[in-house]
Amino acid sequence: MLGSTHGTLTTNSRHARAVACGEHPGPAVRADGESATADDTDVSGRPLHREVPDLDRFFRPGSVAVIGASDTEGRPNTGITRQLIHWAERVGARVHPVHPTRQSVFGLPCHPSVAALPERADLAVLLVSDPLPLIEELAEAEIGFAVAFASGFAETGPEGAEAQERLAAAAHRSGVRLLGPNTNLNAFEVFREDLDGPAIALITQSGHQGRPLFALQDLGIRLSHWAPTGNEADLESADFLSYFTTRPEVGAIAMYVEGLKDGRGFLLAADRAARARVPVVAVKVGRTETGARTAASHTGKLTGSDAVVDAAMRQYGVIRVAGLDELQDTATLLARARPPRAEGVAVYAISGGTGAHFADLATAAGLRLPVLSAAKQAELHQWIPEYLSVANPIDNGGHPVGDWRGRKLIDAILADPSVGVLICPITGPFPPMSDKLAQDLVDAAEQTDKQVCVVWGSPLGTEEAYRTTLLGSSRVATFRTFGNCVTAVRAYLDHHRFTAGYRSPFDDAPRTASPSARKARALLRPGERLSEYAAKQLLRAYGIRVPREQLVTSAAAAVRAAGLVGYPVVMKGSAPQLAHKTELGLVKVGLTSASQVRDAYRELTDIARYEGVELDGVLVCQMVERGVEMVVGISQDSLFGPTVTVGLGGVLVEVLRDAAVRVPPFGEEQVRAMLGELRGRALLDGVRGAPAADVEALVEVVLRVQRMALELGDDLAELDINPLMVLPRGQGAVALDALAVCR
Amino acid sequence: MLGSTHGTLTTNSRHARAVACGEHPGPAVRADGESATADDTDVSGRPLHREVPDLDRFFRPGSVAVIGASDTEGRPNTGITRQLIHWAERVGARVHPVHPTRQSVFGLPCHPSVAALPERADLAVLLVSDPLPLIEELAEAEIGFAVAFASGFAETGPEGAEAQERLAAAAHRSGVRLLGPNTNLNAFEVFREDLDGPAIALITQSGHQGRPLFALQDLGIRLSHWAPTGNEADLESADFLSYFTTRPEVGAIAMYVEGLKDGRGFLLAADRAARARVPVVAVKVGRTETGARTAASHTGKLTGSDAVVDAAMRQYGVIRVAGLDELQDTATLLARARPPRAEGVAVYAISGGTGAHFADLATAAGLRLPVLSAAKQAELHQWIPEYLSVANPIDNGGHPVGDWRGRKLIDAILADPSVGVLICPITGPFPPMSDKLAQDLVDAAEQTDKQVCVVWGSPLGTEEAYRTTLLGSSRVATFRTFGNCVTAVRAYLDHHRFTAGYRSPFDDAPRTASPSARKARALLRPGERLSEYAAKQLLRAYGIRVPREQLVTSAAAAVRAAGLVGYPVVMKGSAPQLAHKTELGLVKVGLTSASQVRDAYRELTDIARYEGVELDGVLVCQMVERGVEMVVGISQDSLFGPTVTVGLGGVLVEVLRDAAVRVPPFGEEQVRAMLGELRGRALLDGVRGAPAADVEALVEVVLRVQRMALELGDDLAELDINPLMVLPRGQGAVALDALAVCR
Repeated sequence: MLGSTHGTLTTNSRHARAVACGEHPGPAVRADGESATADDTDVSGRPLHREVPDLDRFFRPGSVAVIGASDTEGRPNTGITRQLIHWAERVGARVHPVHPTRQSVFGLPCHPSVAALPERADLAVLLVSDPLPLIEELAEAEIGFAVAFASGFAETGPEGAEAQERLAAAAHRSGVRLLGPNTNLNAFEVFREDLDGPAIALITQSGHQGRPLFALQDLGIRLSHWAPTGNEADLESADFLSYFTTRPEVGAIAMYVEGLKDGRGFLLAADRAARARVPVVAVKVGRTETGARTAASHTGKLTGSDAVVDAAMRQYGVIRVAGLDELQDTATLLARARPPRAEGVAVYAISGGTGAHFADLATAAGLRLPVLSAAKQAELHQWIPEYLSVANPIDNGGHPVGDWRGRKLIDAILADPSVGVLICPITGPFPPMSDKLAQDLVDAAEQTDKQVCVVWGSPLGTEEAYRTTLLGSSRVATFRTFGNCVTAVRAYLDHHRFTAGYRSPFDDAPRTASPSARKARALLRPGERLSEYAAKQLLRAYGIRVPREQLVTSAAAAVRAAGLVGYPVVMKGSAPQLAHKTELGLVKVGLTSASQVRDAYRELTDIARYEGVELDGVLVCQMVERGVEMVVGISQDSLFGPTVTVGLGGVLVEVLRDAAVRVPPFGEEQVRAMLGELRGRALLDGVRGAPAADVEALVEVVLRVQRMALELGDDLAELDINPLMVLPRGQGAVALDALAVCR
Repeated sequence: MLGSTHGTLTTNSRHARAVACGEHPGPAVRADGESATADDTDVSGRPLHREVPDLDRFFRPGSVAVIGASDTEGRPNTGITRQLIHWAERVGARVHPVHPTRQSVFGLPCHPSVAALPERADLAVLLVSDPLPLIEELAEAEIGFAVAFASGFAETGPEGAEAQERLAAAAHRSGVRLLGPNTNLNAFEVFREDLDGPAIALITQSGHQGRPLFALQDLGIRLSHWAPTGNEADLESADFLSYFTTRPEVGAIAMYVEGLKDGRGFLLAADRAARARVPVVAVKVGRTETGARTAASHTGKLTGSDAVVDAAMRQYGVIRVAGLDELQDTATLLARARPPRAEGVAVYAISGGTGAHFADLATAAGLRLPVLSAAKQAELHQWIPEYLSVANPIDNGGHPVGDWRGRKLIDAILADPSVGVLICPITGPFPPMSDKLAQDLVDAAEQTDKQVCVVWGSPLGTEEAYRTTLLGSSRVATFRTFGNCVTAVRAYLDHHRFTAGYRSPFDDAPRTASPSARKARALLRPGERLSEYAAKQLLRAYGIRVPREQLVTSAAAAVRAAGLVGYPVVMKGSAPQLAHKTELGLVKVGLTSASQVRDAYRELTDIARYEGVELDGVLVCQMVERGVEMVVGISQDSLFGPTVTVGLGGVLVEVLRDAAVRVPPFGEEQVRAMLGELRGRALLDGVRGAPAADVEALVEVVLRVQRMALELGDDLAELDINPLMVLPRGQGAVALDALAVCR
């Protein structure tokens, strides 16, 4: 039973070896085959569980072998060795330098090889340019973890990528879990131990990008781990992500991602975080082509299509932010804040302008500022002049300094049941008022289970009230800009709403093929684009409605067919490999009589002959006019595999690309969320007197297409239902045209 | 000749009195009528020029009367008096306390009234709860400027607004220029005088909101003025804006605006700034309803519709930002930076990840990162290993610390002709490398006329390299976040591009009515919604094409009309006050024969009878099918008057509100910019094999509608051409339906 329990620690049995729990690690041999049964995959063959590597011994090793250790001044390895010894002292690990010729390094006895170590080390740090030959040695010495600093691998081009492949294969074969190559000392940073409360765990692919988060400790914010994953030949972001969700001290996980190694692995790790309600905040490079290009060359990995990554993150509640400053501020709030008691935000300002400005930004970001009740307003007006608005934002006209009134005001706001978060934007210091205000906010925050946020807007940040009073409290979240405060509070409320209603899609993912799949598979033609007729048969196999239609090969049969499907009819040339039917003139609509049908048949076959298209026949179809045109389809993402898209049809999808995407498996609620993302969503509700469309039928079609993506995804390169005509409520949805390309 | 010269100082002749130029102010009497001639207004009667008040004596008075001065400890006025005396000492002004009973205040002789002052004061500070009775006295004493601190005016409700009206009227009558009421001491802050280079001038409606900008001086950024405009009974933001454009020390103007007092006044001031190429950066509250509601209650002024404000700002190159942090960073860069030598941005990073992340955000924001030439890359590879990418972003793999190579790298990048801006994102300090890097950047910046920007991403900001090295240089622009750097650099390039091509629309604004106006006016019916037929006559008066059509009142006439306009025809019931024709069934399309026309006539008149609609006839119209449906219209904005909107028609405008708006007067280039703002713009270029639409004809229609807005705007509440069918290129555009509501 692996990983199926809600948020609990699952032992990495696939890699269960040196790093098993307890004081004495087990053997460094992989216990293969004991977990990966058929039950662990969905119908597409993708895993439904991902083991959590037990990284306790990696982050807190009892002993560390430093291979290539040096104390010769001027050599790069000397500085690294010195820092490792310093770090080991702090975390209580024994250091064993390894070097073929040295007798001692920095006074520690040096050993000629790994085999000669006086004890089994938990971790080996490889300060050598080619770590490959060492891997077997490490395995023999039962060393469970290694870190490879060397660069020159996938980040340098195809040759380096091959070397990396060999390294990864060696690690996999031997059972040694490897961090790197092309990583750095960040995993061996010394964390402040005088800070308490929930901590941030950090995962970065680039060490420099993690630097400002590490520096948060100087502002009193606790960090517990830093995983600089580098090229991810073996251990990857997802491993650390899932491990950190099991650590009780971790309040939030902050990630800086350039490329994901394995889409499904990331989703399974994110799913684990969502189940455990551990917030994950991520910067993911690759929004634009330039960013993606650079990121790929930097990490030697593929950056998936950004819209898909974005959707995948949202499906699992991963909070994506743009900048490192937002990453810091959002992760800090989410790590420390308790679940909200209410979703309303109250803004308490010492200036009407400040309140108005903050309210403006907060409302634009989707935060809700409830109007306080008349009774609450009357209460506040005991201490605030009548002419100032206290409806929310609350303009106090200047926080009372001389007595208890300021604190009373804050307490009164926090006591309001509609208020879950109190935010006080202080744009600039104006002692003594700002000092007293900061102190009152800190005192009030200590007494409440609601969240208190402060914006300290001064560009200096050297003021006592900021550095000592505000940063001294872990109960107050202090920001430097309105924007970051709004972003973080929005993420905070979203995270708790999302996880409270979270149900893992992996629990419901189909494991066995439906009867539809067998029928559908028979229709696939590897490497070919199916004819419209065949593509529609594929849809029928999955119970998706197509118009009444017949494929005919003579004018007489066309007339008979028209009589059966009922006038008026549409006629279309049907052929494999055929795109742009309309542009070629191979579609005739609104045919109302036998003679029109006969003429149309002749014309279509003439055009096809002229254009050199070999028709498999002519489709005579029922004409369906009244409805909302949508597009539903399957595409392939290089990172995540098949994805499902739904969009508005016709001109809207063509010009505005008004579409939403999801990575299977996903539930019905995600389909509704997709529809909610469409800018033209209102069309489904009926505009200009049109009736509301059958949204339920649309949702059902998307779910059936998802099933098709799961069952046929690896053999079906592309599917496009365009248009899917969604009829008025209660009348269903009909796929009027379809395109399918097999792999 | 007023204000027509490019960026020069224009004397405020309407208010020419105490504050005229020179040492000895003139009389405090308004020289009325000498400037406001018919030449100064456009055809709508709105002014084409706005005088620049000469505020030199306000900001640098020789003597100041403090009315209500106090030195009794514990009184609010005592603190203010003390601060005023302190300020006056610093700026070299003589202070004259005025109080009915005191003999002296803080050792200065006190005078019983303004009339008893020993010299004519330049400025009076009114520390009294009701400033109204003093205004006449000030005028008699020839005091040109007054500041009223008192609150309790428009910000408190209708009664306060009336009191403010009386105060404004008194100021206007007497010629005293008044700042306030409901303002504060910010105009009397002491600025650092040891900073040089171009300064930021600050305009805020809320004092607290200006605080962080004022604090920029502690980071070495020069400020020259602060105008806290409060309730703007008399002097308003636009006055300060236009005055600041005339001050040679002002490099950029930063504004925090809650509401604009007078839309046209603001535009004329912004126009002056654009002509003078003085950048204006603004936070304008009111993006959302909540923000707007609070702002209105705070300043007692109307917040215009936000989309219109946004468009108006863009028309005149005012850079709108969301937060005070962006306001600081953008204004600082724009104040100090020289015009760009090229628009390309080079990103120099010590980590590939940092470069990729920055490039991602920069590209998403529309900045261009040119790929460096092969020769330049080869030059950089002299000092950077081959496997690192130097295409741009330039990954140096660690800035060289030991020697001259780091500086060489920076110089080599700056020397590239495609590079106008070099940005170095340093996410965290890592001395000694970051110290050397900062110093090299500062040194290089001093030697180049290109812009060097640095992001210092550490959350602390207490590091020497930041506080001393980077902030010590006014040639390097230092940011704390990637986001703000990208926003500011984008604004910098946009500003220079905009002002270089700027041509004031006021120079070309029509001053006299066109012949169309007289014809059109005859059609207006005050307070009424015109019939479709009448609305189309209005369009015809302005040369906007309508379909061939006839208004008929019998079936026989309808058949004759159909013969004349040509089959197929559309028939519609026409009546004043008629909306929702389609929903009522009063539109019949695609009629192809006389009998269909006869039937349609009968049906339309039956429906009208049944629905109680009194038709003025039935329109028989040419049917126009092939084209792109657009919407063009006129609306009224409470702040700016008539505005012109263009959008995509049909479902697109209804569901997506895909429309752009402008405030007249504007030129053709703004019409093209409007079309560029439409998300569905590509429809005009032809999609799915449709021909490209006649964009020139569309532009011409919008310009004609603008002319109508200017000429009839005050009598025409609303005009809607929906749809305007834009035919294929070369074939024009036809207004198929129109709605007009008169005031």
